[in-house]
Amino acid sequence: MKIDNKDYRSLWFEEGKLMMIDQNKLPFEFEIKAFDDHVEVMEAIRVMTVRGAPAIGVAGAYGMALAAMNADESGFRGTLRKAHEELCSCRPTAIDLRSGVDHVYESTIKFIPNIEHARKVALLAAEEFAERVVNECYKIGQMGASLIKPGARILTHCNAGALATVDHGTALAVIRAAFAKNPDLFVYVDETRPRLQGARLTAWELHQEGIPHAIIADSAAGYYFSQGEIDIVITGADRICTNGDIANKIGTYEKAVLAHVHEVPFYIAAPLSTFDLYCPKGADIPIEFREPEEITEFEGVKLANVGSPALNPAFDITPAEYIDGIITPCGVFEARDAARKLGELS
Amino acid sequence: MKIDNKDYRSLWFEEGKLMMIDQNKLPFEFEIKAFDDHVEVMEAIRVMTVRGAPAIGVAGAYGMALAAMNADESGFRGTLRKAHEELCSCRPTAIDLRSGVDHVYESTIKFIPNIEHARKVALLAAEEFAERVVNECYKIGQMGASLIKPGARILTHCNAGALATVDHGTALAVIRAAFAKNPDLFVYVDETRPRLQGARLTAWELHQEGIPHAIIADSAAGYYFSQGEIDIVITGADRICTNGDIANKIGTYEKAVLAHVHEVPFYIAAPLSTFDLYCPKGADIPIEFREPEEITEFEGVKLANVGSPALNPAFDITPAEYIDGIITPCGVFEARDAARKLGELS
Repeated sequence: MKIDNKDYRSLWFEEGKLMMIDQNKLPFEFEIKAFDDHVEVMEAIRVMTVRGAPAIGVAGAYGMALAAMNADESGFRGTLRKAHEELCSCRPTAIDLRSGVDHVYESTIKFIPNIEHARKVALLAAEEFAERVVNECYKIGQMGASLIKPGARILTHCNAGALATVDHGTALAVIRAAFAKNPDLFVYVDETRPRLQGARLTAWELHQEGIPHAIIADSAAGYYFSQGEIDIVITGADRICTNGDIANKIGTYEKAVLAHVHEVPFYIAAPLSTFDLYCPKGADIPIEFREPEEITEFEGVKLANVGSPALNPAFDITPAEYIDGIITPCGVFEARDAARKLGELS
Repeated sequence: MKIDNKDYRSLWFEEGKLMMIDQNKLPFEFEIKAFDDHVEVMEAIRVMTVRGAPAIGVAGAYGMALAAMNADESGFRGTLRKAHEELCSCRPTAIDLRSGVDHVYESTIKFIPNIEHARKVALLAAEEFAERVVNECYKIGQMGASLIKPGARILTHCNAGALATVDHGTALAVIRAAFAKNPDLFVYVDETRPRLQGARLTAWELHQEGIPHAIIADSAAGYYFSQGEIDIVITGADRICTNGDIANKIGTYEKAVLAHVHEVPFYIAAPLSTFDLYCPKGADIPIEFREPEEITEFEGVKLANVGSPALNPAFDITPAEYIDGIITPCGVFEARDAARKLGELS
């Protein structure tokens, strides 16, 4: 992605450390943080220094690599097994985290008892996973771009951009690729309460690349649907089940229902790490509940009545029936068929 | 309404001044402001010191009374006509504003050329309008209470409480009346971006009266619908057309669509001042757009990427087909029939 016209990724490995753009500080401060053990990486995932399903998958992969690189020779396997479990449990909904951690863990333990070699493989596997995500996101853009017609007004929710995916994005990869072909498009950006990833991160990414957009309150999308001013909806996903149900940021389901009622096509864009072949349906996906303070405060400023409880489910499930297609690196598939088709291709 | 166990109204007339609880400061500060001319009242309506369709109707009525009380004898009629026009134009969507201003204006000009008498009548007409709204809201509660079954989980949007209506509320009058009969109920309070009337005002009113509730992000309602955890939706309205379409706070339409899809009953509660007999359908209602800063900032804290535009429609239209009934002081009517039935009763 371009940041002040320089190329960046949202996270990368450099001189023994995992580097991340701090997504909690954006867009108000641009700060890069360095992490040199997996416990620090876990905390970064939990507090959302890094967020976005594919990006936390890559962070998990590098976290696993750091665990291997730092582990003593004695008890190496046990240390890795523990780190694997800890990393996977940092956040429950996005399956990419497990995809990334699994990939590095399984690559690494194959080389035990040659610990020195296993450590090198751990880092190589993490790098490979990251590159794969980057390449897949680029391909998602190419596969999806033609869905956006000249003049299209696109609605997106949360941030499915380069920040969420190391580079390019998922939904934003499609928008970036379409914009490169024909800049005549407009993006409605749901602000995405409570953490405002739309208003803070998606708007920032679009602004950096000069893509026309406006932020709206999440609740205002219905108004624009009813005015016929939304032509297509594209979001990312945190997990895709074999039946085509998906989990994504809270509010995605509402937009899918509205798109359905207004006969506006609704697409999900995701790399392969977001598919969970062990999850048959949406009801099986664990939904993370986060702190009520995400609703009742922002940067220390009170937003809500003190003494009133708040409930903060961070994700919801959109059933396959509301999804017109899943944009993957291998093509655009019907939601119900996507997992099977990808299985046939792999 | 009870505030720290004392009875209050959201606005009232006292010693020549219109008094208002400052709704921009709630719930963080409890401050009462005094206004002694209609120009100040207009500013209070514009900046939302007072908000909520029935309450701004009453504020408009008192504003008109203040204009009459302050107007010189010479050019009295012209001054009143100008004040009438100015007051009605403060905010475009809620018809109650015009209802209140019209009522006082028309009562007053009948007594010209007896200016002294006309001034007294102006205040009496405003007081009468306010009492009518209070009584109607009380009756709305009585009419609607039986719609809430024991154990019901209710969703409400924005603030349709005592603050929005002088006393009792519209949607909250129903909830208050149901709670008085049987305290086994629970209210999901949409925070209601961008101005957070749900999180700030509705939560505060419910908290003051010990009514069980939780604040949710607007986008989270879909999650609770999909979990079968919402039994009924009740909101207020800013204008009701003769065909049963309604305007209400941005986001109401999304909740109505979700309720429809999930077969959850969706009710509007409103006094007579909210019905616009000159407005045949929702598309004829002017939608107010407010400053983008309501989206991008809160109390001076930046919430969004600087440089990104924001769009801020303050209301949306919910078509009659998504409304299961309108709870009025005279009974609960089908949306399509409500205006006609009320006409027959009046």
